[in-house]
Amino acid sequence: MDGGKAVEEDIGNRMHELARELFPIARSLTGEGVRETLGILQRELPGLTIKEVPSGTACFDWTVPPEWNVKDAYILGPDGRKLADFRQNNLHLVGYSAPIRQTIGLEALQAHLHSLPEQPDAIPYVTSYYQKNWGFCLSQKQRDALEEGEYEVVIDSTLDDDGSLTYGELVIPSTMGADREIFVSTYVCHPSMANNELSGPVVSTALARWLQSLDERRYTYRFIFIPETIGSILYLSLHLEHLKAHVTAGFNISCVGDERVYSYLPTRRGTTLSDRIARHALGHLAPDYVRHSFLERGSDERQYNAPGVDLPVVSVMRSKYGTYPEYHTSMDNLEFITPAGLYGSYNVLRHCFKGLECNSIYKAAVLCEPQLGKRGLYPSARKKGDPKPREMLDLLAYADGKTDLLEIADTTGHPIWVLAEAAGKLRAADLLEEISGP
Amino acid sequence: MDGGKAVEEDIGNRMHELARELFPIARSLTGEGVRETLGILQRELPGLTIKEVPSGTACFDWTVPPEWNVKDAYILGPDGRKLADFRQNNLHLVGYSAPIRQTIGLEALQAHLHSLPEQPDAIPYVTSYYQKNWGFCLSQKQRDALEEGEYEVVIDSTLDDDGSLTYGELVIPSTMGADREIFVSTYVCHPSMANNELSGPVVSTALARWLQSLDERRYTYRFIFIPETIGSILYLSLHLEHLKAHVTAGFNISCVGDERVYSYLPTRRGTTLSDRIARHALGHLAPDYVRHSFLERGSDERQYNAPGVDLPVVSVMRSKYGTYPEYHTSMDNLEFITPAGLYGSYNVLRHCFKGLECNSIYKAAVLCEPQLGKRGLYPSARKKGDPKPREMLDLLAYADGKTDLLEIADTTGHPIWVLAEAAGKLRAADLLEEISGP
Amino acid sequence: MDGGKAVEEDIGNRMHELARELFPIARSLTGEGVRETLGILQRELPGLTIKEVPSGTACFDWTVPPEWNVKDAYILGPDGRKLADFRQNNLHLVGYSAPIRQTIGLEALQAHLHSLPEQPDAIPYVTSYYQKNWGFCLSQKQRDALEEGEYEVVIDSTLDDDGSLTYGELVIPSTMGADREIFVSTYVCHPSMANNELSGPVVSTALARWLQSLDERRYTYRFIFIPETIGSILYLSLHLEHLKAHVTAGFNISCVGDERVYSYLPTRRGTTLSDRIARHALGHLAPDYVRHSFLERGSDERQYNAPGVDLPVVSVMRSKYGTYPEYHTSMDNLEFITPAGLYGSYNVLRHCFKGLECNSIYKAAVLCEPQLGKRGLYPSARKKGDPKPREMLDLLAYADGKTDLLEIADTTGHPIWVLAEAAGKLRAADLLEEISGP
Repeated sequence: MDGGKAVEEDIGNRMHELARELFPIARSLTGEGVRETLGILQRELPGLTIKEVPSGTACFDWTVPPEWNVKDAYILGPDGRKLADFRQNNLHLVGYSAPIRQTIGLEALQAHLHSLPEQPDAIPYVTSYYQKNWGFCLSQKQRDALEEGEYEVVIDSTLDDDGSLTYGELVIPSTMGADREIFVSTYVCHPSMANNELSGPVVSTALARWLQSLDERRYTYRFIFIPETIGSILYLSLHLEHLKAHVTAGFNISCVGDERVYSYLPTRRGTTLSDRIARHALGHLAPDYVRHSFLERGSDERQYNAPGVDLPVVSVMRSKYGTYPEYHTSMDNLEFITPAGLYGSYNVLRHCFKGLECNSIYKAAVLCEPQLGKRGLYPSARKKGDPKPREMLDLLAYADGKTDLLEIADTTGHPIWVLAEAAGKLRAADLLEEISGP
Repeated sequence: MDGGKAVEEDIGNRMHELARELFPIARSLTGEGVRETLGILQRELPGLTIKEVPSGTACFDWTVPPEWNVKDAYILGPDGRKLADFRQNNLHLVGYSAPIRQTIGLEALQAHLHSLPEQPDAIPYVTSYYQKNWGFCLSQKQRDALEEGEYEVVIDSTLDDDGSLTYGELVIPSTMGADREIFVSTYVCHPSMANNELSGPVVSTALARWLQSLDERRYTYRFIFIPETIGSILYLSLHLEHLKAHVTAGFNISCVGDERVYSYLPTRRGTTLSDRIARHALGHLAPDYVRHSFLERGSDERQYNAPGVDLPVVSVMRSKYGTYPEYHTSMDNLEFITPAGLYGSYNVLRHCFKGLECNSIYKAAVLCEPQLGKRGLYPSARKKGDPKPREMLDLLAYADGKTDLLEIADTTGHPIWVLAEAAGKLRAADLLEEISGP
Repeated sequence: MDGGKAVEEDIGNRMHELARELFPIARSLTGEGVRETLGILQRELPGLTIKEVPSGTACFDWTVPPEWNVKDAYILGPDGRKLADFRQNNLHLVGYSAPIRQTIGLEALQAHLHSLPEQPDAIPYVTSYYQKNWGFCLSQKQRDALEEGEYEVVIDSTLDDDGSLTYGELVIPSTMGADREIFVSTYVCHPSMANNELSGPVVSTALARWLQSLDERRYTYRFIFIPETIGSILYLSLHLEHLKAHVTAGFNISCVGDERVYSYLPTRRGTTLSDRIARHALGHLAPDYVRHSFLERGSDERQYNAPGVDLPVVSVMRSKYGTYPEYHTSMDNLEFITPAGLYGSYNVLRHCFKGLECNSIYKAAVLCEPQLGKRGLYPSARKKGDPKPREMLDLLAYADGKTDLLEIADTTGHPIWVLAEAAGKLRAADLLEEISGP
């Protein structure tokens, strides 16, 4: 096994271990589970700051909800056995269930139960954030086994209007003092599910660690770890002007842990720099990726691409939310995501960042093709079939001082990170000028 | 049978009855048949005005021809039997045949006869508007049965230089005082043929009646009932400046009565609002419609799209002129057009008008997605697979204050008339602003 | 055989004869072979001027090399027999081989030999223009038969720093005093090979003769006969400003002699007038032509399309360099090119020139369709299926005073040279105005 492969495995394993550590924590839009999760991420990413925003804070059309915490939740059956025990699997409790302690008959209970007839072994994930309610989720098999009788429903939860919503933010500054930003957004609001969603914060953490390790960064990188929907809306309500002024490209990171496919969801118009680099990196690293339409949006790209917000945020994913059977059930577990699956996503996104970092505009420094041979950049005796230094020749042929390297890469079929190396050689030989940086 | 179906049949039957009433009348570019036809249409459309333009009037490169009327026309055979009797079928006489009463031999007669060897039972439709001539049309079978001998040719027609060309015009004003117009043009110059052309004036009449019944019309609608070519050229020569200043979209209505296919012929460039709404309506209501090229033009869209005229006029048709075997023969009869065929065209064109009427530009009134749930517009408990109000969400996601509803409809795949309903709900909830009307 | 066919054969044969005459001459970047070749072309094209540029002249990143001439070159084998005799086939000597007279063993010799194992009967074409070296080329069969022993290597060549590079130029002026130019570039640097490259200068000569025979030329035509790469770079370094100011379209003529396929290589962006006319002419005359990408460039279009040069130069070819097995070997001989192959290329390029000459912008002189019938341009009695004068009608329908004839031709599907005839008839009838010439 070569070094590269070993490094890959190392990074992949580390991500999977972090996911394993975070998995059991009971997360939701708000509450201690989110705080605990961000605390662990802060250990991995020392610069991460944790913010608290009071419940009741208005953000555009929304209001930060009360803070929700659960001490215990279960159903006691007629035979005295515990069912749907939150402490066994936090998916058993409908998210944001109000407190209750009550004895009711089976029929009344059924109105508060959720299960999936087509996936009889899976516990579904259900929430009721903005309509006060309570409920339990269980497998269809468990539900089918319920007998007539009296059930004691116990939900020892709090919905605290004086609580807060918690999110994390990490800014990795440009080493060149540049104020243009690459924006990365991921969720910390899902309870015990793996692809959707622990893969997002886990891969984001690895990306941030890699960025922090670089000697040079042209861009500033801003990572946010937020609850879905309310978190992005809240963050936008607080920082929209800053983001509109500084964000050059952005990525919503969700569902990046399994090995089935790669997939991509564009911005509203599909023509931003984020779209271009995502398609470029996927096209070279995972050419059979699935290209979704913005009509299939469903994650926080909905907010970032809303009219008037208009941030260039795309999603690069593995199996997209809503498209795989394990989605939003207890089957989306630590076996569904793998070190190799996490590494693949990490690697595609890392190449997106690399591509953005090297996307300069170049101009050929001499008219006509230069004599590469006299500089040792071209074979001297030419005969039929001899290979040519295609990347250098193609770069010189298209470097018109107006076209960015990414467009040249897409036109010529070379990966931008390979063209960037050719650009380095040509600049060293005074054959190419950088007209403007990325 | 539901009410909708009954209404459809009622409208379809009424159109077919009108076609049956108009069918026997001997129409041509000019003459009493045109006047009689317009008189009947005026009965259906009280606001229709009938115009007379003197023969000899110059219009661009053309001149209004003499008025042509026919009292009688036939051939008397050697056996004394009448042949090719105009009173039996007005297709027997070549249009604009000059008067004649003469006895000639079969060979001399043959030079003035027209028939279709490949359709031996059909009488062809032949005209000689601008070159003085005479002739008779008959089936190939009739022609083959002609025996040697002397034939008496009788054409009791008049070509009156002091006559006039007659056309009809109906203006249905906007209920909002708007001066922008939807323009509709159809023919009244074809003798006894049904698809090409009684279907055009008959469907146009039904559309005008529907428009008149509406409480609200954003646009003014202008219908003209004219002879083909000379009629549109004459009308343009009289009203070009007005039309260029006011027409927003236009439709040439011809060949709209049979049930075989739907078809569409674009404007010269194919990118006008008329093209967009025609393709949209057909795409939703008759998705397997035939999309012709402007190179296949052959009706009055030739004049409306001529350079310097440049009116946005498309044709929405069923079986296009020139493409079906019955075209320009006695086989294009009242059996070839059907109530359902007429209704289908009426319905597509009606949806074109509806789409134009609701093609506003909207802007989301809040930043980010609004909280539809608190307004009862979104299911409160969300679980895997729950349906979402896609039309509302898609409209909000694309309502940027610049894109018209038709473009949003084409991007999102929803019919514009469905999006318009969603827009109504969102406006009622103060979530959407109308930036400008259609 | 009709006159047209006889003329074709005559022109084709004449080109093939010229190729036969030029074939044995030992050409390279510089030297007497180039002068002799240009002398013969001058006999065919009296206006051709022959230019000499001193060795050592700087041109952009390059320097004109020393002049290379060869009196004799061969290898004497151990048995005293001559091998790889330059006088028998000038491909035997590596281009720009330095002088040498030396006796060496077989192993030392092998390092200077070139052959093609996959084409054992072919002598390869090898050069070493810019790195001083020597070598011989021979068939793999000859090479395999070499026995151990001493070989006397004899290269009686000169590399003269006081020599010059020779090229030819022919300007055929516009008969209307226009200063806009069509630019044609072809090579005279290949030794005894036929498709790549004697076909280029031979077809260029026939085109120039045809242009000289015309009574009227809207454009000035500039032909250059140069060595590849250094020749085009040198010419550009001397004349770039003139060319950028005057060249409207340009053609690099190479590999135009065989009968296998037609092919086309675009400009860098692929959207110039040269691209449009080349695709148009090939589309009508050789619709199954191969459309290459600019990424497959390899001839002087590399220089003409370099950033900052940006001349609209395309290549119209038969079997493209690098794509056929005979390429750059002794198998690319006079049997590989044919009179019919040469004529086909000549004819396509001639139609490119014809198309450029007639590419005016027209405007319909009357509003709406004119009454063609009264001018004898339209059949008077119209019946079903009668043919229409499509070219005239289509031209009138698109002649908006803004669209050039080539775009109208591409939109309507008519060849531009056929539309130009229709334009002539319409102008004669005062129905069309020429708004601007080509």
